[in-house]
Amino acid sequence: MKFEEYKSVAELEQLAKNPPDLTKEGFLNEKRVKEYAISFGKWRLLYGTERVDEKICKALKTLALEAKVFEKMSKMQNMEVMNYVNNCESEQRRVGHTAIRDLEKNRKTSDFAREAAEDYQSELRKLKAFLEKTEKFNAMIVVGIGGSYLGTEAVYHALKAEQRNAKKLYFASNIDPDKVQSILKEVDPKQTLIAIVSKSGGTLEIKAQEELLRKRYAALKLNPKDYFVLVTGKASPMDNPSLFLEVFYMWDYIGGRFSVSSMVGALPLAFVLGMQVWEEFLKGLYEMDRHALEKKEPLKNLPLLGALLGIWNRNFLKMDTLAIIPYAQAMNYWSAHLQQLFMESNGKSVSQDDATFVKHETSPVIWGTVGTEGQHAYHQCIHQGTDTIPLEFIGFATPQREGDMVIEGTTNQEKLIANLFAQAIALAKGDKNKNPNKYFSGNRPSRILLAETLDAYTLGALLAYHEHYVAFQGFIWGINSFDQEGVQLGKVLATNMIELFKYKREKGCLPKDSTSSLNRAFIEELDLLQGGNLKSAKKLA
Amino acid sequence: MKFEEYKSVAELEQLAKNPPDLTKEGFLNEKRVKEYAISFGKWRLLYGTERVDEKICKALKTLALEAKVFEKMSKMQNMEVMNYVNNCESEQRRVGHTAIRDLEKNRKTSDFAREAAEDYQSELRKLKAFLEKTEKFNAMIVVGIGGSYLGTEAVYHALKAEQRNAKKLYFASNIDPDKVQSILKEVDPKQTLIAIVSKSGGTLEIKAQEELLRKRYAALKLNPKDYFVLVTGKASPMDNPSLFLEVFYMWDYIGGRFSVSSMVGALPLAFVLGMQVWEEFLKGLYEMDRHALEKKEPLKNLPLLGALLGIWNRNFLKMDTLAIIPYAQAMNYWSAHLQQLFMESNGKSVSQDDATFVKHETSPVIWGTVGTEGQHAYHQCIHQGTDTIPLEFIGFATPQREGDMVIEGTTNQEKLIANLFAQAIALAKGDKNKNPNKYFSGNRPSRILLAETLDAYTLGALLAYHEHYVAFQGFIWGINSFDQEGVQLGKVLATNMIELFKYKREKGCLPKDSTSSLNRAFIEELDLLQGGNLKSAKKLA
Repeated sequence: MKFEEYKSVAELEQLAKNPPDLTKEGFLNEKRVKEYAISFGKWRLLYGTERVDEKICKALKTLALEAKVFEKMSKMQNMEVMNYVNNCESEQRRVGHTAIRDLEKNRKTSDFAREAAEDYQSELRKLKAFLEKTEKFNAMIVVGIGGSYLGTEAVYHALKAEQRNAKKLYFASNIDPDKVQSILKEVDPKQTLIAIVSKSGGTLEIKAQEELLRKRYAALKLNPKDYFVLVTGKASPMDNPSLFLEVFYMWDYIGGRFSVSSMVGALPLAFVLGMQVWEEFLKGLYEMDRHALEKKEPLKNLPLLGALLGIWNRNFLKMDTLAIIPYAQAMNYWSAHLQQLFMESNGKSVSQDDATFVKHETSPVIWGTVGTEGQHAYHQCIHQGTDTIPLEFIGFATPQREGDMVIEGTTNQEKLIANLFAQAIALAKGDKNKNPNKYFSGNRPSRILLAETLDAYTLGALLAYHEHYVAFQGFIWGINSFDQEGVQLGKVLATNMIELFKYKREKGCLPKDSTSSLNRAFIEELDLLQGGNLKSAKKLA
Repeated sequence: MKFEEYKSVAELEQLAKNPPDLTKEGFLNEKRVKEYAISFGKWRLLYGTERVDEKICKALKTLALEAKVFEKMSKMQNMEVMNYVNNCESEQRRVGHTAIRDLEKNRKTSDFAREAAEDYQSELRKLKAFLEKTEKFNAMIVVGIGGSYLGTEAVYHALKAEQRNAKKLYFASNIDPDKVQSILKEVDPKQTLIAIVSKSGGTLEIKAQEELLRKRYAALKLNPKDYFVLVTGKASPMDNPSLFLEVFYMWDYIGGRFSVSSMVGALPLAFVLGMQVWEEFLKGLYEMDRHALEKKEPLKNLPLLGALLGIWNRNFLKMDTLAIIPYAQAMNYWSAHLQQLFMESNGKSVSQDDATFVKHETSPVIWGTVGTEGQHAYHQCIHQGTDTIPLEFIGFATPQREGDMVIEGTTNQEKLIANLFAQAIALAKGDKNKNPNKYFSGNRPSRILLAETLDAYTLGALLAYHEHYVAFQGFIWGINSFDQEGVQLGKVLATNMIELFKYKREKGCLPKDSTSSLNRAFIEELDLLQGGNLKSAKKLA
């Protein structure tokens, strides 16, 4: 059945015509704050500042059941083939990011899932031995792009406070040559491991960076094999152990954006944070995975409730973006990871059931930076702009590090969280000021995720919350959240364009044929800026 | 006259019903790429991949003239009172960020503008002397938030390649105590200047951070007066020279988000990059300022054309966001600055003329990270999502640093820019693949800003391009781009919330009165997470 055919969808459309008015005197009160709140593990979700009431929540619950979200979540965690689109060629793969982190002693999942968990455990044992062997290295450069580093970077910064050594972690994600040059200025190659991370083993950016770095090491008379480590899909074109100090594997059932908990994240994060922190992190993920299966009270399932509130705002209240704003400086990179997780998973238009084009909105634009920064930047637009921008706030009761102080009667951490709460209230209630320039319409929804402190276990649970939030939304929208065909066309066209640059470099001119005329026009524009010469070569060594 | 009353608006609405089809065979061709392109200084803007044609461009030009954008730009640059809203209390201020960087020998502007320019030059002379005196310091921590650091941080990272010393620059923007603690771990206080940046001199976050740092210095038996520098508004509550090594001034005619070129940016950026780089940067800004006044051929005015294309996409093709994507790793912080510049300036709903609520959309959500990163993250959604997301790409012909290499026939810089071009083409043309999962609708518009390389002069011009883009849009939308009343409500409510935390810390419980019941509910939720105790105090020194 399709989204628009669900009974609950018709009901929600009706309810959306007259959603609860959060600005009404006394509506947002103590009682509401406490009633619209659920918990799991270390996390509590407050959603009294969303534009929902009992009726709407009930209809959202029906929507989840109509869309069979628990059956699908269970299939996914049991590694049935969930990455597919019917009626057309598609990846046809199992989805295994939850299976690998199943920490249960006697796993009751499918054979596939059990095997995946065991394979992963065996990689982790390999990793432990590897880390002991490479104790002396004080830095690692991760060469990966998109899913091969965004999550790792986000987790690294979030948990840096738990680091107990002086090891450094760098990310040479971009093909931009300036990036890797600026890193090379900071490290001692003799003490630096290079981690090449590429699931497919064929990504242009990664191959080019790897080659550049191998040449650099060779020029220093260092044997790259003693410094280069690989994380790749088993039997990928890069899977050549003779070229690496060690090769770690992932499998095709783990999509890049879901790969933080695989060796993609494990290698660099355990290198800097240690295996113990890594294991705590996995525990957080695992427990949220189990929680996501809890179907007894659907509205008390944390990621499902998040997903449903998101769908209410997106498909019924017609909001096109979602700002995710952690009030924690250490989570500065979180939204970059979530952009990929959400938008690459659910930025789709094709129904998984029959490959027809869907008639409803799918992924909103995900954006946001840390609070309170945003309050002094774009919150003007969130409070008084012409569009309504829903928010997910993330906050913590205590800081990660020592050294906070009581200044004028409160700690800075208290001031920080006070600001978070104040934003949620201000956005919901507004202020019908008589001065139109100071008028706040209110009814701008948000929800708040709260935890005691930001540690590895809590962060693991949060990551799994967001992963399942995305999966549940995909299930309800009836799309395949696990492929990414939308990135292919650009890759093909880039290859053609690169061929022209190559031609130009070899022959000193561009080909004159009509099929390359469009591409040629762009390159000629570039030449124009450089006085028509091949100046891009001028800075070459 | 109001936006919806302009003749051109009615015409554009008609034209928007049937915009040019970029996917039509042969439509996007060599000729179009070259015709839809304009230049100023080092910058070239290609807009053949926008959904415009001659008729639409003509109507957009009429819109600019109907909205009297050149009169308004000239008034702004002459420092007439442009920060106002009629019929209600408003800031009623001049706007002076262009006036201060007027490098003309014989300025033909108003007395106000000339005086502002001279005041700024005198601050710059003070800065030069200060930098000579503080040669021995090897680090600076900038304590500022929002407009007091976002632009500075963006420029710093963009121009780091031009740095010729080992000085470090840190930003303790957030009140989050973890941020400043992590910086303090990295610096030697004896060699570190603390730059307090607050125009109003009353920002909560800044006062709290300053106090924390002063205590820290005092505890180390260092006299804060020998290390603390201030940038503030003349006669602000912080303006007490006896507490600082030096005080630099800005004036109320410079809004935070337009203050990069004032002492806000000058102090930290000249500290690390040197005065010469700073002067080059100012030259770039100044020349784009002059260009913004060029009214002879409105569609060849770079920031105006940008603004008009933005309005076409936002108000007529109904796109709610704008992704700005520099293909340059060094510009990683650019979009965070632009979020503030665009959304705080134009995230408004009130007409400047008569304080009525506008009937059209104003600022879109601005977002984006650097390319090619985004291609491996959220571009899936841009290519195949259900919403159309317009883009502004920024690219460079040559890298900033030495060390790029020819690998398989092309440099990495060539691969980088090839990807940028390929994205613009793929988004515009699409691919009517028979497999629905590989189908790309096309007609997803973008424009490309190109320059030879990313240096101080070029970046200055780009910053002014974006500043004037925003100002022109504000002029056309008929809103006041220069105030930010929308941030006030949250500040007031945060103060109330902080009072409760203070009460609790003093009395060990929360007040029971009904006016604080809503706030109390949130704090009690926090307590719940901590087992009901005042645990946020536990990590205090």
